[in-house]
Amino acid sequence: MTDALDAVARLFVNDGLSEDEIARQAALYGPLADDVRALIPLAVQTRAGDDDVRQAREHLAAAMELLGRTKEDHPFGTRFNDNGNFRVWGNAVMGLRNAIAPLHRINHDPDGRVWADFHLHVGFEGPAGHTHGGVSALVLDQLLGDAARVGGSPGMTGTLTLRYRKPTPLGDLHGEAKLDRTEGRKAFVTGHISGPHGICVEAEGIFIKPHWPVEDGRDRNQTR
Amino acid sequence: MTDALDAVARLFVNDGLSEDEIARQAALYGPLADDVRALIPLAVQTRAGDDDVRQAREHLAAAMELLGRTKEDHPFGTRFNDNGNFRVWGNAVMGLRNAIAPLHRINHDPDGRVWADFHLHVGFEGPAGHTHGGVSALVLDQLLGDAARVGGSPGMTGTLTLRYRKPTPLGDLHGEAKLDRTEGRKAFVTGHISGPHGICVEAEGIFIKPHWPVEDGRDRNQTR
Repeated sequence: MTDALDAVARLFVNDGLSEDEIARQAALYGPLADDVRALIPLAVQTRAGDDDVRQAREHLAAAMELLGRTKEDHPFGTRFNDNGNFRVWGNAVMGLRNAIAPLHRINHDPDGRVWADFHLHVGFEGPAGHTHGGVSALVLDQLLGDAARVGGSPGMTGTLTLRYRKPTPLGDLHGEAKLDRTEGRKAFVTGHISGPHGICVEAEGIFIKPHWPVEDGRDRNQTR
Repeated sequence: MTDALDAVARLFVNDGLSEDEIARQAALYGPLADDVRALIPLAVQTRAGDDDVRQAREHLAAAMELLGRTKEDHPFGTRFNDNGNFRVWGNAVMGLRNAIAPLHRINHDPDGRVWADFHLHVGFEGPAGHTHGGVSALVLDQLLGDAARVGGSPGMTGTLTLRYRKPTPLGDLHGEAKLDRTEGRKAFVTGHISGPHGICVEAEGIFIKPHWPVEDGRDRNQTR
């Protein structure tokens, strides 16, 4: 566990960035990630022929060369400044700089409910035409973890149980979660994902406060 | 449920492609998805300045234009031919054309064990420097579902329970799953993900055979 703790400590950093510099980076790198995000369904759906694919790949290679000239050699981690402006821009579910991330914004209601409306493109497919069961789990793990944090009990996932009530479509979906109760270092959280025809997946999670530093911001809506 | 059944039926298609045509498409579109996959961590890690990002985005826009000239307007679904060569190239965990997909290959052992060695880049981050708990769930849902199918009980995820034993690092990981038993239409499957320091996440799943057609190929290793 020491290795894990060391790794977290190294990547949980007050980098002292000004709000202006954070805004500058968000405006520069957010749209770049959006472009890569748009390429994901295109790579699944394109019918382009040999020549167009070859030319497209030349453009992608040129972009990679430009972006790779100077880059970090580690995960993004959790960064913050003295204002308590936390950034998890590499996060797989809602990182501003992460092209995989399906959630644009997680909302926090005054009653502790955490929710997000989001759109899953064809790159999130599992059963034909439907959301991959594991993608629902991915989104719910994030929402439940956020509900624990917003409720004052930030932690790592201890147990996550998912019940698939009906097939989850792709497209526009809603997810939400809420902290039910705590017992010592454990937070018990529930949530679900719903589509146009009601609840598709229900989740229960136990999140456990670790012995290392975690983000504990409470009263912010998080926008990617 | 009728809508879901209709959607699955529409996208569960014998498209009659020859093996040669399948190989041609794999050779054309697989490397394209690999390029987009390589861009995901770059978008997290690049330190490129305004000019380089602007130029890179122009290249990405040009690639999108080329790839978007002709494309399908629906998810990939499940396609097969008379040889029983199934393709799930849009699958979020191992689709050949899916840049998100973290698994390159799922191996099936004669004893029914299903396993994969895989690498998670920085785009799969959750807690600082570690694999997102939901990403572990995503990979395990796929492996457990595959173990049910390989064991002769293909189905949709009914219940998935994950126990997080220790933080899962990013980087090189191993996952495996096995069908334990069946009861009627239910398949009970277990599995885990391990890293350099042992088992990180354990999973139990119940997969339920649906009333619509599903892939039931048994004896193939699946390569993306």
